Amino acid sequence: MSAEVALPLGIALVHHPVRNKRGETIGSAVTNLDLHDIARAGRTYGVDRYFVTTPYTDQQTLVAEIVGHWRDGYGATYNPARKEALEIIQVVASLEEAIEAMQARHGQRPLVVATSAQEQGRLIAFGDLRRMVAAGRPVLLVFGTAHGLAPEVIDTVDAVLPPVKGRTAYNHLSVRSAVAIILDRLLGL
Amino acid sequence: MSAEVALPLGIALVHHPVRNKRGETIGSAVTNLDLHDIARAGRTYGVDRYFVTTPYTDQQTLVAEIVGHWRDGYGATYNPARKEALEIIQVVASLEEAIEAMQARHGQRPLVVATSAQEQGRLIAFGDLRRMVAAGRPVLLVFGTAHGLAPEVIDTVDAVLPPVKGRTAYNHLSVRSAVAIILDRLLGL
Repeated sequence: MSAEVALPLGIALVHHPVRNKRGETIGSAVTNLDLHDIARAGRTYGVDRYFVTTPYTDQQTLVAEIVGHWRDGYGATYNPARKEALEIIQVVASLEEAIEAMQARHGQRPLVVATSAQEQGRLIAFGDLRRMVAAGRPVLLVFGTAHGLAPEVIDTVDAVLPPVKGRTAYNHLSVRSAVAIILDRLLGL
Repeated sequence: MSAEVALPLGIALVHHPVRNKRGETIGSAVTNLDLHDIARAGRTYGVDRYFVTTPYTDQQTLVAEIVGHWRDGYGATYNPARKEALEIIQVVASLEEAIEAMQARHGQRPLVVATSAQEQGRLIAFGDLRRMVAAGRPVLLVFGTAHGLAPEVIDTVDAVLPPVKGRTAYNHLSVRSAVAIILDRLLGL
């Protein structure tokens, strides 16, 4: 690990409650590549903690096994850069637990900011959030798997980022791509 | 498909020749999620063609089967948005074939721009390339799988984008994340 100081910025990837394609509230399964890609992007941009959020104990165990392989097992020797990325992963059962962990680390409740592919209320502009992050305000960015965060999560957060827009009306980025783009907009040089 | 006009911008994802972790030139296998994530990001940002570049006929067949499932098979009904994204995929055997396909589509040889996690010569700034793309210049962005494009590819391109920098020295983004970030820097609103 280098001597760089990570920012008080967390990412929570929520697997429950999220929506399915019919808009029903469901729980989703953890995807291996969500762990790797988002940890690598988070590590690149100096993210402090990547909270993999699932209430299912079998899924929590799966994440711990995958991360353990790369952090302590053969993977740590085979690919030290991957170890360094996956070290920012912390498994939590709920978004509230991620918020509490951020508060314990940084002595202050983080600003909880959801992301969505749809327009929502309580928007915060990318530029405004970028300035808050640069000023050292603890922030927890919340991403949904499947078809996005359930309304009951959106309703509890402090603010919501606008949808990432390309030049088209197509709004079906993978969550891995959305995390990478949003980190670059908030932290890219 | 909407009435939006795609830009004359192509992406080539190169599976050979690329480097392995020891810097040797190898060929890599196609990754399913590279097809999906990069097609979805490409479709979001109005990319015209996503060239999956591999000289291996078994890999070309695999890509055709996966794309066919989502474009014409059960997947097309199950998930029309995915069909719309994967429609931009075209399998080619080499980078030269991708360049020729772009030339045939747009009547002009594209500017061929490589991406790299290392500093290279013949740099083109993101802002300059963004202006060229906005002006309608055909451009082919070239990404490497595994540990990046082999030097013999870098040597033949017209220009190279700077490495994507976060706030740390860590430079191990997945190619999926790198594509998403670079498209946003060139085309994001």
